[in-house]
Amino acid sequence: MKVNTDPKKIKEVLTRNVVEVIPSKRALATLLKERRIRLYLGIDPTSPELHLGHAVALRKLREFQELGHRVIFLIGDFTAQIGDPSGRDKKREPLSFSQIKKNMAPYKKQAGKILDLSKVEIKYNSEWLSQLSLKDFLGISSRITISRLLERDMFQQRFQKGEEVWLNELLYPLLQGYDSVAMNVDLEVGATDQTFNMLVGRKLQRIYNKKEKFVLTTPMLAGLDGRKMSKSYGNTINILDPPREMYGKIMSIKDELIPQYFELCTNLPLKEIAAIKKKLKNQKVNPRDLKARLAQEIVKLYYGEGKAKKAGQEFKRIFQEKKLPSQIKEVEIREKKIAILDLLVKAKLASSKSEAKRLVFQRGVKINGRTLQNWQDLIEIKKGQILQVGKRKFVKIG
Amino acid sequence: MKVNTDPKKIKEVLTRNVVEVIPSKRALATLLKERRIRLYLGIDPTSPELHLGHAVALRKLREFQELGHRVIFLIGDFTAQIGDPSGRDKKREPLSFSQIKKNMAPYKKQAGKILDLSKVEIKYNSEWLSQLSLKDFLGISSRITISRLLERDMFQQRFQKGEEVWLNELLYPLLQGYDSVAMNVDLEVGATDQTFNMLVGRKLQRIYNKKEKFVLTTPMLAGLDGRKMSKSYGNTINILDPPREMYGKIMSIKDELIPQYFELCTNLPLKEIAAIKKKLKNQKVNPRDLKARLAQEIVKLYYGEGKAKKAGQEFKRIFQEKKLPSQIKEVEIREKKIAILDLLVKAKLASSKSEAKRLVFQRGVKINGRTLQNWQDLIEIKKGQILQVGKRKFVKIG
Repeated sequence: MKVNTDPKKIKEVLTRNVVEVIPSKRALATLLKERRIRLYLGIDPTSPELHLGHAVALRKLREFQELGHRVIFLIGDFTAQIGDPSGRDKKREPLSFSQIKKNMAPYKKQAGKILDLSKVEIKYNSEWLSQLSLKDFLGISSRITISRLLERDMFQQRFQKGEEVWLNELLYPLLQGYDSVAMNVDLEVGATDQTFNMLVGRKLQRIYNKKEKFVLTTPMLAGLDGRKMSKSYGNTINILDPPREMYGKIMSIKDELIPQYFELCTNLPLKEIAAIKKKLKNQKVNPRDLKARLAQEIVKLYYGEGKAKKAGQEFKRIFQEKKLPSQIKEVEIREKKIAILDLLVKAKLASSKSEAKRLVFQRGVKINGRTLQNWQDLIEIKKGQILQVGKRKFVKIG
Repeated sequence: MKVNTDPKKIKEVLTRNVVEVIPSKRALATLLKERRIRLYLGIDPTSPELHLGHAVALRKLREFQELGHRVIFLIGDFTAQIGDPSGRDKKREPLSFSQIKKNMAPYKKQAGKILDLSKVEIKYNSEWLSQLSLKDFLGISSRITISRLLERDMFQQRFQKGEEVWLNELLYPLLQGYDSVAMNVDLEVGATDQTFNMLVGRKLQRIYNKKEKFVLTTPMLAGLDGRKMSKSYGNTINILDPPREMYGKIMSIKDELIPQYFELCTNLPLKEIAAIKKKLKNQKVNPRDLKARLAQEIVKLYYGEGKAKKAGQEFKRIFQEKKLPSQIKEVEIREKKIAILDLLVKAKLASSKSEAKRLVFQRGVKINGRTLQNWQDLIEIKKGQILQVGKRKFVKIG
């Protein structure tokens, strides 16, 4: 297979959802016309779910794949043990290797929703980082100055707030940077919060391999609440969220995020998005209708048109017409009376009693439409009771 | 053998040539009365010579040895490859392992001039540091904050001068600190420029071994010119300097250093040294006579009384009575005419032609008492010619 060197196509790939190409778009475009390149995206498995924020970079990878270039999906199983401080205003708690293994188990499936896995090389950075000796690492560290590492915004912010930066956090970029050396790639793709780490890799690859690595950054996607999309904020839309849940979550984003989501998460032409922006600005459209369109587009990408439509109808039924979903999961409960916290855990509406307690506290639990007030309630079980958590989770007692 | 727990003796050991004991002298004194302790001094073999600066800490070790405690002499063959930035206003050039091996070859002999080697455990930190995995090291680095490492004076000084600190320099103290963890000692002895590193080791030993390590610091000895004694300044008096050279060098120290040298480099009672200080201050004595006494005392320590006396007489002959030394090494030169630079190298008065050139430039080379003016001179060789470099080096052409 030959690579596609159509200048217009290349320009597209290097424009939409691209913040920056280092050293320059022009130089990368020239390379893309010359030969097939090897590029990669690295993700640390700090949680089992990939979300639409990750998808922005993964979709960019897909575009390169469609041009005929060779894509590596790198799972940072070693670096996840150290913890990337990027974009963190607090120290990351270290993960055990068994937790990391658990987290990365579903990665292929998720990446496969976007990439053509038959053509992807999947790699794990423990392959080379667990082989790297302390002496080698110290050698690498003699090529980097402290001031270069400390100039990162987030470190400066922490210092200003009187908070600590731990030495392992300072060392993180060198490890990620060594990935580039080990794989000797032409290009790394990542969100803008990875710029610093990717540039360290660029530098190390130049020193150790005498090879130029391009860096392409994609924009950060905001989460449901407008903050950075991150598991720790609980504001993510996950690639594996079922269609209805994905749809519902998209319907709940803040109105001002609508254009950003269209740009970063759909394939709608930019012209059309520009028109949407204009309408929104001039208040010529109900944001709810735009979100419905957005949700439709996004769910379609991951589940196809049929399921996207169904999810839309379902959403309308429940929220706009205040009806119950057409299908509700049944759960059998044998007890005649049961503490509400136990009930929520058994019905898998809460992962633990403490989460269940919090849900009740937040007035997020209903039985047959009645909001529970007290987490100590004892519930009398009746067949057909509808248990509801939040706006979108329902269970019928069978 | 029992340890000596005489409180007076212990107090002496913890007083003279001791700047500080951390956490306190009292706590260490208590421990020394309770049991035999294990203590160590670590030196990185960055040069083959140990000098009187090193000897201050080595002599302190000897005192502990005489009390009956177990002494470890640690050779930092791993850490020497990284380079301790302590007291350096420039980055240390990395040493190759073969250079390090060469450097440490004569260490035992030198330490044996001060310590009773039959009772000393000699260790090399490559034993554990080359076994330490990168992952372990990253674990250690998660226990230390950046601000703690950056608060070192010398780093702050470099930042203020706009000079760089390299990451490996920042990491050095963790490696040295890990020595304490690996050896699980009771006490580390070192000069004050090692305080920071020794405290990192104290911290790590507490975390990893749950054990208190005491730190005892000894004063820094000034070199011939008053700056820190250091090979890179060329101002050292080496433990293996031959008696006459050692004697001559001591005669050349600055007058104001006399009391410091008496305190740090001899066993003269402090009372006597106080009297010397007083005389010096009141100008009741010729400093030259005090230096002769000092040189006598120091050379005696390393070579015994006989050789010390001889060195003194010799010094007097040459410098005070401007005579040639009683014995001059003969060198056979076959050429009839030879370039002065080649002659100096052949006669082992210079280690290289470029050093030879510098010596001539500095007007430090005489032939039969006549100072050479031109490094390009061609010398006509005659038997019996006296070749002289500086004040103390003579060779007779045989």
